[in-house]
Amino acid sequence: MGELSTLFAPQRVAVVGASEETGTVGYAITSNLLAEFEGETVAVNPNQEEVLGLDCHDSLTDLENVDVAIVVVPATVAVDVVRDAARAGIENVVVVTAGFSEAGSDGSAREAELVEIATEHDLNVVGPNSLGVMSTGVGMNATFGPRTATPGTISFMSQSGAFITAVLDWAGDREIGFRDIVSLGNKAVLDESDFVREWGDDPETDVILGYLEDVADGREFIEAAREVTRETPIVTVKSGRTEAGASAAASHTGAIAGSDEAYEAGFKQAGVLRVDTVQELFDFASILDGQPLPDGDGVAIVTNAGGPGVMTTDAVGDAALRLAEFEDETLDRLSEALPSEANIFNPVDVIGDADVERFATAIEIALSDPGVGMAVVLACPTATLSFEALADETVRLQAEYATPVAATLMGGSGTDAAAATLREAGIPTYFDPARAVRSLDALREYAAIRDHDPVEPTTFDVEYDRAREILTSAVERGRTHLGVESMDLLDAYGISTPQGEVVDSPGDAERVAREIGGEVVMKIVSPDISHKSDIGGVEVGVPQEAVRDTYEDIVVRARNYQPDGSIVGVQIQEMVDLDEGTETIIGVSRDPQFGPLVMFGLGGIFVEVMEDTAFRVAPVAGSEARAMLGEIKSAPLLSGARGRTPADRAALVETIQRVSQLVTDFPAITELDINPVVAQPEGATAVDLRLTLDQEKL
Amino acid sequence: MGELSTLFAPQRVAVVGASEETGTVGYAITSNLLAEFEGETVAVNPNQEEVLGLDCHDSLTDLENVDVAIVVVPATVAVDVVRDAARAGIENVVVVTAGFSEAGSDGSAREAELVEIATEHDLNVVGPNSLGVMSTGVGMNATFGPRTATPGTISFMSQSGAFITAVLDWAGDREIGFRDIVSLGNKAVLDESDFVREWGDDPETDVILGYLEDVADGREFIEAAREVTRETPIVTVKSGRTEAGASAAASHTGAIAGSDEAYEAGFKQAGVLRVDTVQELFDFASILDGQPLPDGDGVAIVTNAGGPGVMTTDAVGDAALRLAEFEDETLDRLSEALPSEANIFNPVDVIGDADVERFATAIEIALSDPGVGMAVVLACPTATLSFEALADETVRLQAEYATPVAATLMGGSGTDAAAATLREAGIPTYFDPARAVRSLDALREYAAIRDHDPVEPTTFDVEYDRAREILTSAVERGRTHLGVESMDLLDAYGISTPQGEVVDSPGDAERVAREIGGEVVMKIVSPDISHKSDIGGVEVGVPQEAVRDTYEDIVVRARNYQPDGSIVGVQIQEMVDLDEGTETIIGVSRDPQFGPLVMFGLGGIFVEVMEDTAFRVAPVAGSEARAMLGEIKSAPLLSGARGRTPADRAALVETIQRVSQLVTDFPAITELDINPVVAQPEGATAVDLRLTLDQEKL
Repeated sequence: MGELSTLFAPQRVAVVGASEETGTVGYAITSNLLAEFEGETVAVNPNQEEVLGLDCHDSLTDLENVDVAIVVVPATVAVDVVRDAARAGIENVVVVTAGFSEAGSDGSAREAELVEIATEHDLNVVGPNSLGVMSTGVGMNATFGPRTATPGTISFMSQSGAFITAVLDWAGDREIGFRDIVSLGNKAVLDESDFVREWGDDPETDVILGYLEDVADGREFIEAAREVTRETPIVTVKSGRTEAGASAAASHTGAIAGSDEAYEAGFKQAGVLRVDTVQELFDFASILDGQPLPDGDGVAIVTNAGGPGVMTTDAVGDAALRLAEFEDETLDRLSEALPSEANIFNPVDVIGDADVERFATAIEIALSDPGVGMAVVLACPTATLSFEALADETVRLQAEYATPVAATLMGGSGTDAAAATLREAGIPTYFDPARAVRSLDALREYAAIRDHDPVEPTTFDVEYDRAREILTSAVERGRTHLGVESMDLLDAYGISTPQGEVVDSPGDAERVAREIGGEVVMKIVSPDISHKSDIGGVEVGVPQEAVRDTYEDIVVRARNYQPDGSIVGVQIQEMVDLDEGTETIIGVSRDPQFGPLVMFGLGGIFVEVMEDTAFRVAPVAGSEARAMLGEIKSAPLLSGARGRTPADRAALVETIQRVSQLVTDFPAITELDINPVVAQPEGATAVDLRLTLDQEKL
Repeated sequence: MGELSTLFAPQRVAVVGASEETGTVGYAITSNLLAEFEGETVAVNPNQEEVLGLDCHDSLTDLENVDVAIVVVPATVAVDVVRDAARAGIENVVVVTAGFSEAGSDGSAREAELVEIATEHDLNVVGPNSLGVMSTGVGMNATFGPRTATPGTISFMSQSGAFITAVLDWAGDREIGFRDIVSLGNKAVLDESDFVREWGDDPETDVILGYLEDVADGREFIEAAREVTRETPIVTVKSGRTEAGASAAASHTGAIAGSDEAYEAGFKQAGVLRVDTVQELFDFASILDGQPLPDGDGVAIVTNAGGPGVMTTDAVGDAALRLAEFEDETLDRLSEALPSEANIFNPVDVIGDADVERFATAIEIALSDPGVGMAVVLACPTATLSFEALADETVRLQAEYATPVAATLMGGSGTDAAAATLREAGIPTYFDPARAVRSLDALREYAAIRDHDPVEPTTFDVEYDRAREILTSAVERGRTHLGVESMDLLDAYGISTPQGEVVDSPGDAERVAREIGGEVVMKIVSPDISHKSDIGGVEVGVPQEAVRDTYEDIVVRARNYQPDGSIVGVQIQEMVDLDEGTETIIGVSRDPQFGPLVMFGLGGIFVEVMEDTAFRVAPVAGSEARAMLGEIKSAPLLSGARGRTPADRAALVETIQRVSQLVTDFPAITELDINPVVAQPEGATAVDLRLTLDQEKL
């Protein structure tokens, strides 16, 4: 694919399938283009002489210097048209036509052909099955939607065309402005990562919004978004979050999305703000677009209404924000400026008889406190307050102090003029104070994303060849499910494992136990037995003298359990002191979009019953692994809660990173479960292992 | 207090402090009354001859047949005016005047006097420090707010006057109608429970809304609301939820609210729907007001837009709702009615080119499916769909099938006319589908509240006198912190405890241990040692032969730990088999508003680190105790998860109820902690106890 800049700033756009017949897509797009497009619109339709006053061309191949071709011909001929575009040297093609991969096997074949042509000719293809594209910078509405966007600085991509239509209709009434809009369609060629990159480079785009049902390539998306979000915030809905939603999404766009845990982790790692509702999407967009980033998480609330002030304070408590604590000087100044019945402590209540002067004075004093990172101005209608005057003062003070402000005007249409003044100055207004606070919290979150050091996964010095050999030889022996006998694999990647060996005779068992010394752990090794403990296949604390008998016992139990099962032998393992340690689990599954997804949690009931887990997409950097340890609710148990010995968190962090490196290096490992990893006061030891191999990928 | 009906339907209202001076409260209330009140407005002001055309009276004592007196005179004389009202036989007094308990100790004294008069004369007093009252049934606006409510069926009480002003301003533009409105003020006499009862009896009130910062009497509120919510839904904001919010509330109304756990539990037990935002308050009110209750939790979604359909499905997954699964007949009918590209499965997608006929046909087929309990009609703007026609059809079908419907019209002002049609028919509309689904979920929740059997706490046959004797004798000995030595108290209330006795000599220790037989548990008993285990004061599994030495060891350790501490002796206790049991905790704290609050959770880290707890206000009924067991996240561990022996849930439920009865019978027990209660395969045994007594209350 080439650069996308000409897609959004073309000089010449051709509509293939242009039509004069109202109600057709070809008509809608042509007339939408003719309405405001600053460049030239060219009509292509071999069956027409003229369309809406434009001379009609027979084919793209007749044309020169076309920047974008919009394809609205029937599916059966659309691929040929794209081929024509490539031949004519056109870089950008928007395939509006439906009837591709969303429509059965014929369509899928057609889409494969389309991808082939695009790859061969390095074509930028939007769609197919797209509503089209818009760019207010050049007045281009190349969609068949009924409404054109108001110019602005939000760029928006959507995997639902209807969602774009709905949003434009709604946003138009609210003066929310857009820069570029793209309906992603089936994302056969261009996907969200491409547009994230493009808009990240576009100085006119201040906020990137998305409605996504899946992400085509999770890893690529993380990389693109991680870079872009250092300059430009990305806010996106990822729908199909729930089981029912995912199945609805699959039937809508054919999107087979991976687990929501992967999206949640991936978006977090990419610095993408994820929202669940349309309201939040635009609430966050508006404040990110209009307000500066805060330099602290302390919120000042200034209000003329006590009760709503309490609700706002609750919302601050719900968010990752806190109520700013005023300096003495601030309190003195407020005390001097306000009547004695007023509340000078945060939330500041200037009380019901305040006029705009008193209200504004309180706002100014609050904004001048160094502990105030952001502010909510919250007004209820009274006989003494002019909303318009308050809006003017708020705009002035926000500009003067360059502190982000959200306004809550708790009234009806009497607040409209004031809201318009505030909106024009980039200050969002709401009726519900909870929304104002949540929006400020989004600012805080994005500020934290920007502050973050660049994430660089550590590459440890490991024995890659040895690990490959272990996996290859397992596959050669027809094994795809490995267990404790393959602990060497972990050892090769520098992960601590107990001393041990798999033996297949009582004599060898005794010999290995002697080498280890003291009491040992003995576990059956069989690819056919997954719940070893349940069948009596594990014995802990076996004294040297009992090793021989225990060997026999374990093997007999395994035989009884599964007479035909294959028994590799018995693992003799050094005892790991569980009294001094905390059992944790590190697991890896493979997500269709994001690849290896690393899970961390505490062992036993914590992961399985309490679902107390943290996820990250591999490769996992040190800072990300550290965050995983802090994210679980049971985290205090790693830090010595309830009289426990604190665990070696650094060792756990390194173990997570090394596991991440292992599964990144070997895509053949489709699932991996190290349970438990015992976190000790010093070090962390992997005690048991289960992994699944896909031999095709080795 | 008398009946409140004359407060909201008076024939004669007197304003004491009526004034002609614009900008005063006396002017505002008098002119608001004169505007629309169907009854007679009487002005009282000894300093005026006439106010706004009304003859002015010197005092209430000159008047007869006044139903309501509105008091707006200064605080210093307000109490005298209330006394006059009582003398004149006026039943209802609304004290608008501020300067009472919210304003220091003079004000508090004044308020106490007010309460005294009210009690003596059985007066209904609203306030003081109130915005006033409104009743659209008689056109009465006896508030000093700028706007009068539109008539409707929502009755609304608020602990914030500004909140009423704000809501009326906003609701007026949205045609949300009200029946009665009361600004509760300081709630010196009448509080939320009184209005809940009044509106519960009022056939014209369909929904009760509240903005509360505290509840004056939690138990009374639960009883009142529990009865009322069987007929009339109650939705309320309880602000001051968070720590910061509670402290803001305290400075706003002086409300010292108890723990949010108590409110959460109390509202649940009362059947009150609690919301956190203004938006939800009115979203829930509108749907409860306008739509019938569902007869199932299956939701049908019918849309012309795939993407928004997926978002709606996600919202269903987030709520306690499920996507309805259509019958074969429904699928056949949809398949016949819709084009092949449509999705006949729920969410039904009639696709973008649908006209109203196709859309309505799909809605009708969906509503006729017996598994559909409610429906979301979700439309995006297209060239083929008329929103107005869709609204008409939706209204018709909703009425025909009597199934609750929420509409989502995802567009701008082009949807206004359609929204108005829907609203008029009681069908709420939203732009954001998540709000539509949450509103339907509120309907489901309220339907479940109504379906619920009346909650009757069981009264067990207990040895009350024996329990009283144990507590009294402890207090007589100067003891207010009791421990394991008082396990008899639990025994008296029929709670299983291990066999055991407190002894004060090694010889007695041996004797008791022999009586118990086998290994025993030994614990130091000292009011000065609370963390017995930490100082080596507990020994488990002591064999008979070691009892004497262990006695000495434990006592020595206790002496070393606290040389001056008082040592009662050593408890010798039967061993409780923990391997077969699950450790749980039952705790009780006392909430200032709700009284005894019973907590249940699993022992060890579950309560302390994972905060996995369930709360109910005592007395706790059997069904409520059962719900507590299911509410904790670790609930599966009681049912045999991960190979555990299932616990005797019935025994736990009974233990919770018996504890509830104990703390209800003895208000002197201010705190109680039974940790652990071991839940066994058969039975549940309380193993250790700590409780705190308030001897004043015994």
